[in-house]
Amino acid sequence: MTAPAAADLFALDRAAQDLLFRAARTANTFTDEPVTDAQVAAIHDLIRYGPTAYNGQPLRVLLLRSAESRARLLPHVSSSNRAKTASAPLVAVLAADVDFHERLPELYPHRPQARDWLADRAARAEQARFNATLQIGYLLVGVRAAGLAAGPMAGFDAAGVTREFFPDGRQEALLLMNVGHPGPDAWRDRLPRLPTADVIHTL
Amino acid sequence: MTAPAAADLFALDRAAQDLLFRAARTANTFTDEPVTDAQVAAIHDLIRYGPTAYNGQPLRVLLLRSAESRARLLPHVSSSNRAKTASAPLVAVLAADVDFHERLPELYPHRPQARDWLADRAARAEQARFNATLQIGYLLVGVRAAGLAAGPMAGFDAAGVTREFFPDGRQEALLLMNVGHPGPDAWRDRLPRLPTADVIHTL
Repeated sequence: MTAPAAADLFALDRAAQDLLFRAARTANTFTDEPVTDAQVAAIHDLIRYGPTAYNGQPLRVLLLRSAESRARLLPHVSSSNRAKTASAPLVAVLAADVDFHERLPELYPHRPQARDWLADRAARAEQARFNATLQIGYLLVGVRAAGLAAGPMAGFDAAGVTREFFPDGRQEALLLMNVGHPGPDAWRDRLPRLPTADVIHTL
Repeated sequence: MTAPAAADLFALDRAAQDLLFRAARTANTFTDEPVTDAQVAAIHDLIRYGPTAYNGQPLRVLLLRSAESRARLLPHVSSSNRAKTASAPLVAVLAADVDFHERLPELYPHRPQARDWLADRAARAEQARFNATLQIGYLLVGVRAAGLAAGPMAGFDAAGVTREFFPDGRQEALLLMNVGHPGPDAWRDRLPRLPTADVIHTL
């Protein structure tokens, strides 16, 4: 691989590259400025165009806005994530809809039988998790596109959150995400990234 | 949720929103125009800044450029994906490095013991798959940011591709992706997307 001439090879301009990736950071503190329902809806309106298998779109997002819902979450969050989760203006539970196949006759109308290919729950749950996780990648980019900082958190008891918020077993919690405007000392120094030569190989 | 005022709520301008999401499509045909190593390296140089748990960056990308490597892939691809995979200028196997934890003392230097937290292979493989899948989401956005069309394909025998290309068991194939410039009749009509009210809920 040759050294990348990076920014110049893109159709996307440098400011947008910085906004979405190069200058964007995972925030660990947030200001009090709220994240509105209109902002969340706009972000979804953008990122819902990202591709998923069978156009199944299994990602579901549960916004915890009430003090009561936040209190139900905190016992399932690792101690190192608890303070920022308690104080973030918005906390979202990102989950996979294991029964996403029920919508396929509408979402994938040229192959309505796709619903029946996904009759097996275990295989379907794996597809739901994989495609919802792809969509979380799009969502994180969408949050940044809205000028907001995302704080994804894997340090929580996913089975506990699933039981707490999705007791019917239809959805599985995958990741928590704080969203807001970065507060004081919102991040540490940038951690090192792998060089391209260690990630991309050619046959 | 109120109706989204969409484009106006973003820090990212409308042209960039269109490039990455609203006007972007999964391509099913491609022109002969090549995708260079410099383009691929630039895309990785951008998207490697996307966050992953423990900064582990488990995504690995195998570019199949030789006729021989392409021929090894095709028997594992579903019949409906075979023609476009044979003719795409670039085909990438997107995989998770199950042994990503070996790099953590370098990638997550303030908690070098994180490597030991991930000693269990099954738990580590699940983390590798999840975080590599998030990175595939970033990668798809990065391909589009470079002005290229992505053609992600889940219709293949992942276990067969893993055995064929990663016989040491260190990596697991997650998704195939064709990359190039869209050719004639590259896509069908846009499939329907779920309304925000069916995806986002609030407690």
